[in-house]
Amino acid sequence: MAESERVDLHVIDLDVLSEASCRAAVDQVVAEQGRLDVVVNNAGMLMVGITEAFAPEQLAQAFDTNAISWLRVNRAALPTMRRQGRGVLVYVSSTTAHIFEPFMGPYVASKAAGEALAEVMGFEVSGFGIESVIVVPGAFTSGTEHFAHAHTPANVSVVAQYGDLPRRAGSMRSRLEAIDAAHGGALDVSAVGDAVRRALDMPHGERPARIVVDAQQKGVEELNALHRAKQAPFFRELGIEDLMAIPQGKR
Amino acid sequence: MAESERVDLHVIDLDVLSEASCRAAVDQVVAEQGRLDVVVNNAGMLMVGITEAFAPEQLAQAFDTNAISWLRVNRAALPTMRRQGRGVLVYVSSTTAHIFEPFMGPYVASKAAGEALAEVMGFEVSGFGIESVIVVPGAFTSGTEHFAHAHTPANVSVVAQYGDLPRRAGSMRSRLEAIDAAHGGALDVSAVGDAVRRALDMPHGERPARIVVDAQQKGVEELNALHRAKQAPFFRELGIEDLMAIPQGKR
Repeated sequence: MAESERVDLHVIDLDVLSEASCRAAVDQVVAEQGRLDVVVNNAGMLMVGITEAFAPEQLAQAFDTNAISWLRVNRAALPTMRRQGRGVLVYVSSTTAHIFEPFMGPYVASKAAGEALAEVMGFEVSGFGIESVIVVPGAFTSGTEHFAHAHTPANVSVVAQYGDLPRRAGSMRSRLEAIDAAHGGALDVSAVGDAVRRALDMPHGERPARIVVDAQQKGVEELNALHRAKQAPFFRELGIEDLMAIPQGKR
Repeated sequence: MAESERVDLHVIDLDVLSEASCRAAVDQVVAEQGRLDVVVNNAGMLMVGITEAFAPEQLAQAFDTNAISWLRVNRAALPTMRRQGRGVLVYVSSTTAHIFEPFMGPYVASKAAGEALAEVMGFEVSGFGIESVIVVPGAFTSGTEHFAHAHTPANVSVVAQYGDLPRRAGSMRSRLEAIDAAHGGALDVSAVGDAVRRALDMPHGERPARIVVDAQQKGVEELNALHRAKQAPFFRELGIEDLMAIPQGKR
């Protein structure tokens, strides 16, 4: 693909669960290229099942892979980006971080955590000319192994005490497919990559805080707009409204 | 206090970081009282500082105390409540889970995670007649040791690279006090306890999903209302709208 598209693509290993690996990967990029323009935080894992039946260690694992990993990767990349006075942090989140759904408790909690972490870090690094974009995909019912690879609860005896609910949880995927059909058909997963590409093509300093890619059209854009409308006056009162945008000189 | 108010108060140890301790505490209550009506998930810790300067282990600690603890306590309490066909889960959250603020990244991420977890578990246990109420306090600038006991970033060398920002982070508390004054004065922390009491006094099945107690009046109620308005039609499409309320027979 890289060859047919004549793209100069270099693949390197990066384990988002290891600080040393994150640092080594960034060091290699900077050593070879002299700079680091963009980081896309895309690693993630799904958990599906009755929340009470997940072990606390499983919830910790969801946080580790889906949220703490973003801090690890950013901590490796930010010193270079801050020195450059420029950079773009992209995150692949989920509409479930905005409209909470049952039957994926640890996943939903970890994605909500990731969104908060990404937005807060975005405020704090904005003064260095570093821009943040959170891509927010809805459910993709095909084209990924997200559902097939989903982790399930460790305590099956608890699941058995939930009557009809586990069966209903199992029917969510086909329900989502029906909703997609009603809204004009499922999106191809390439729509997420396209959204990242679209964000990177925009002029620096003018990228949106979030780009929603949601076949189910759940209305996350409207929630984000109201969120922003409540945040802005509070930030003005706190005297930190400048953190909501890249400074003019750094665009 | 318990004596002067003639309240029959029994204090028992419970370490929210230990599954065994959570289970032992619930077992003791059920052995002595024969039932468990209410759990208030109130334990929490604050972290203040530049997010990039927090070690990944510190973020994991915030998740552990502020969110995973809620799963641990609930996993201990829910088998009894499900058997009873009745119970109330109360959580003490934060407006920062709704309107993200800089300079407390791990805290904000953990509170966002907690809200998501609490709401998802609430849907999944509603059929057992178990009701969930999330109390959402704004910043309390006095009357607690929340700010005095706040954890700070492990990597002070990173903090030093953020120019003026750490000083601005340090001024947030006095800024909040000024906002409180403009909105009619700071609330006493007893307002949070009063909100819990108010929730418990309501008829079963009619408690609100959230009660906001916010001197800064940031508008979280409006965000919650829109959140609910987007959630309801999606849940109807998924065929799970019944999970948004306690069944009539279980009230």
